[in-house]
Amino acid sequence: MDYQPRPDDVRFLLNAVLDAPARLAALAPFAEVDEALQSQVLEEAGRFVGEVVAPINRAGDETGCSFSNGEVTSPPGFREAYQAFVDGGWPALSAAPEDGGQGLPAVLEAVLYEWLAAANHGLTMAPGLLHGAYACLKHHGSDELKQRYLQKIATGEWLATMCLTEAHAGSDLGQVRTRAVPQADGSLRVSGSKIFISGGEHDLTPNIVHLVLCRLPDAPAGPKGLSLALVPRQLPDGKRNAVHCERIEEKMGLHGSPTCSMRFDDATGWLVGEPGRGLAAMFVMMNSARLHVALQGIGLLDAAWQKADAYAAERRQMRAPGPVPASRRGESADLIAEHPAVRRILDTQRAWIDGARTIAYRSALMLDVAAHDADPKARERAQRWCSLVTPVLKAACTHQAFHGASECLQVFGGHGYVREWGIEQIVRDSRVTMIYEGTNEIQAIDLLVRKVLPDGGAAMSAVLLELRDTLDASREADADVQRRLAQLRYLGTTVAMAAHADPALPYEVADDYLRSTMLAMLAWAWARIEAASPGDAEKARVAAAFRRWVLPEFEMRMGIVKKACETVALTHAAAPGSGVSN
Amino acid sequence: MDYQPRPDDVRFLLNAVLDAPARLAALAPFAEVDEALQSQVLEEAGRFVGEVVAPINRAGDETGCSFSNGEVTSPPGFREAYQAFVDGGWPALSAAPEDGGQGLPAVLEAVLYEWLAAANHGLTMAPGLLHGAYACLKHHGSDELKQRYLQKIATGEWLATMCLTEAHAGSDLGQVRTRAVPQADGSLRVSGSKIFISGGEHDLTPNIVHLVLCRLPDAPAGPKGLSLALVPRQLPDGKRNAVHCERIEEKMGLHGSPTCSMRFDDATGWLVGEPGRGLAAMFVMMNSARLHVALQGIGLLDAAWQKADAYAAERRQMRAPGPVPASRRGESADLIAEHPAVRRILDTQRAWIDGARTIAYRSALMLDVAAHDADPKARERAQRWCSLVTPVLKAACTHQAFHGASECLQVFGGHGYVREWGIEQIVRDSRVTMIYEGTNEIQAIDLLVRKVLPDGGAAMSAVLLELRDTLDASREADADVQRRLAQLRYLGTTVAMAAHADPALPYEVADDYLRSTMLAMLAWAWARIEAASPGDAEKARVAAAFRRWVLPEFEMRMGIVKKACETVALTHAAAPGSGVSN
Repeated sequence: MDYQPRPDDVRFLLNAVLDAPARLAALAPFAEVDEALQSQVLEEAGRFVGEVVAPINRAGDETGCSFSNGEVTSPPGFREAYQAFVDGGWPALSAAPEDGGQGLPAVLEAVLYEWLAAANHGLTMAPGLLHGAYACLKHHGSDELKQRYLQKIATGEWLATMCLTEAHAGSDLGQVRTRAVPQADGSLRVSGSKIFISGGEHDLTPNIVHLVLCRLPDAPAGPKGLSLALVPRQLPDGKRNAVHCERIEEKMGLHGSPTCSMRFDDATGWLVGEPGRGLAAMFVMMNSARLHVALQGIGLLDAAWQKADAYAAERRQMRAPGPVPASRRGESADLIAEHPAVRRILDTQRAWIDGARTIAYRSALMLDVAAHDADPKARERAQRWCSLVTPVLKAACTHQAFHGASECLQVFGGHGYVREWGIEQIVRDSRVTMIYEGTNEIQAIDLLVRKVLPDGGAAMSAVLLELRDTLDASREADADVQRRLAQLRYLGTTVAMAAHADPALPYEVADDYLRSTMLAMLAWAWARIEAASPGDAEKARVAAAFRRWVLPEFEMRMGIVKKACETVALTHAAAPGSGVSN
Repeated sequence: MDYQPRPDDVRFLLNAVLDAPARLAALAPFAEVDEALQSQVLEEAGRFVGEVVAPINRAGDETGCSFSNGEVTSPPGFREAYQAFVDGGWPALSAAPEDGGQGLPAVLEAVLYEWLAAANHGLTMAPGLLHGAYACLKHHGSDELKQRYLQKIATGEWLATMCLTEAHAGSDLGQVRTRAVPQADGSLRVSGSKIFISGGEHDLTPNIVHLVLCRLPDAPAGPKGLSLALVPRQLPDGKRNAVHCERIEEKMGLHGSPTCSMRFDDATGWLVGEPGRGLAAMFVMMNSARLHVALQGIGLLDAAWQKADAYAAERRQMRAPGPVPASRRGESADLIAEHPAVRRILDTQRAWIDGARTIAYRSALMLDVAAHDADPKARERAQRWCSLVTPVLKAACTHQAFHGASECLQVFGGHGYVREWGIEQIVRDSRVTMIYEGTNEIQAIDLLVRKVLPDGGAAMSAVLLELRDTLDASREADADVQRRLAQLRYLGTTVAMAAHADPALPYEVADDYLRSTMLAMLAWAWARIEAASPGDAEKARVAAAFRRWVLPEFEMRMGIVKKACETVALTHAAAPGSGVSN
């Protein structure tokens, strides 16, 4: 019952729905990356994930990481699997060839990481920050730092962390207190405590490269006073740096990944990027990192779905209503997959998985376009898509991972609540994705308050028009999606107007706005999937389940936002001297 | 941060909203149970739960139950706490005085068990089945069995189990295979294996009384061939019976309660009730048992809310939008309770808790009325309420326990995912309530297919009219609730008609129908709460949050059901020779 990647499912979305091979071939670095090569990479990635990574997932949960005397021991099999991952060249899939990478498209790396998380979320955390650290260092590191660390990180020979959170500074990084004092030799002495550091200490690689958010002397308070330091566990001269793991957390799940409390005691480090520009240096990788968390969500949901689907195709309980199912054949009870309540769970989660994949893979393609398209306007459009769609994906896919995995657990009845089938582990593991890399509440505010409203909804409107233009209004399903996209464009304008009267309003409806956006995009994805698979009865059934059970939330969320805007308009019209015109 | 019952909150609902003291005083056995006595019981129960039961909750999770050589060791402190529970007379709160009970109303027992579950779900499982076993034995046991076991169970001196599930027979009890062979002395020899038996083995009491669903020789296949046997761990002669615990489950949560696999090897037992009427004998306690699971859900959600509310009133992160909060006072960040996303979580969960309490306490009152009212018509009406409302409460309150506790976890950010604050335990513990005592999918089918549709929605309509008649249409909020109740009555008729054309339809929309019902009842509860608390700003804020964020699901669910019915009507009108008229 270990997770098995299904490359055909992904290929259908990439090739038939998203036209990825042609889009990639148009980008200079991928001129050679044709459909056959992409397919081969997917096959090999699927095999590696299924054969090497998935089988040790349970040990990661049950044995977990252990901590003793400042050292972390990984769960059984993790060291060997990680070494095989490095040997296979997987960490460096999209890193540049000159840095030791494979130079493959981000979209293939996205699929790989979705599958990795599905198979073994705990192990995936180890290399999960490599690409971000690589990008951060490549864009902002000095030549000396790059020369010393870039290739090691690109190849995964050394792992990396992001040390942001402190006990009193979680969502509010402006409160970070870790200090960094410049030395005569150009290095820094870094002191402070960080918590929730994934992979802060472990036995997978001989060195660990910490990227530490810190404050230089006399830096102003708040986020503008933050700088970024690179602090390795092992110094270039081979000595151990003053970086200590004080404990690892007891968590709800994700036991395969050590979540460390780190102490820096005048540890030696070096500045990455400009002083006071630490957040900017980290945010260069934000879209990619958040997209990867969304992909973790999709992967975990697919893993839960695979388990529930297999169980429902074996387990028989009671008679199903309606016509006699073909699978009955003299049995005294029907397959639970034939029972409407179970069918509904399986089909709606399938609808989420393939719909969200379509949008997430499109976002990964846009990362490739943004990085490599020769046309600056195309790069700008792609960047706009990534900026607006990434928070939507991060929040919606991780929310669905947890809630959908719980639905899949329900398919097992009491058997789902015990360890045996591994489904409850997915529920526990997935819960953290709603929190890390920016809580889902922060994603919603990022989307609406920071990105949609400042230009009155213009950029979001442009993104939705892009989607509209891919549809064929002569098809009924497409016309329905176009209508929803238009409603969503109008909604952005409505909120922008109401926000003039009540600046707190967008914070109150940010979640509903984000959900509306995701649901409209899922509707778009399913219209495209159906158009690309005529006569496919299973796809048609899942599409119908999507429209029947999932999509009605769109109207509900839109209604909540509209009503809030109307209430503001009424209140402010009633109060003399206030209102939109002020 | 242990759970603390708040008797004032409950008293407001019982006295001001539900008029419980007057209703109870009208029942003969409770003529002496006046408001002062009820209040005193609540105070003492609250103190006991807060002082004795809550502090050992974490040990229940972290140490858990252990199993060795067929014996179960309870977590630290559980034996002493259970003994104190028995010594205080709590297990027998609503049992008849002649059986060693206190003879108090079911509604007070309901509050006690809600608080117990909130404080320590694991420990609560131990006495959780006592009342059911007591009722079952009292109604169906022979005089000899009653004489031997009834008082021991009523007082909690011996604990009891329900042995229903087998590996292949979960929701489908008709597949139970455990055999019972009558002996010349009138006893039975019981053989078979049962799984998921809560408290099947433990060290809390010297004897354990198992009620075992089994099959007599030559019994027909299916549910009508099932009988019920009482099988004690210790036989009347003091010898150990052939009842063995083979293992306890590793579960997602609820580690304080041993979930046992039991083997009966020609164990000695006695028939309870008629042969072939085993399910009927167990179902006598169904409404009470399911209501108690709903109360567990409410309690767990309240426990999660208490933690999140306290954390949000201490933790400061970032600036809140809108007017400067009074709590700012020169701090560099605002309380997270001031942030709209956190406020929304806290207020919507509060709305669920107090709304669901109102409906659940009313149901417990109806249990008292059904048992004790002198007027047979009043008893019948109360029975009708319990039959229809219990599955709604069981499914909706347990669903909200898990999902709402997860929302409360989100308030803690990353701190919620680690053990420290105890919030993740509530998420894990609560998940099982959606499964046991009939999965929530089974509850929805029980409601719509077995209870609402057979009389074309008439009984449900009568229940909704009862609610309507408590409202004052001249109040705008009440009129709005009346409109929803009317829509819901009409919906029952619509589904009943569509079900003639497509018998599978009710199974497909059962969940949406149940949710619609719960949301309309919550709207009723909040209209009553508001009417009973004029000028209470906090209640008004929570009521507004309910209408703004929770209630819109009512229209969404109604819309899903209506659309499904319309689709059936269209399909069958289009197909010649089929349709409603056939």
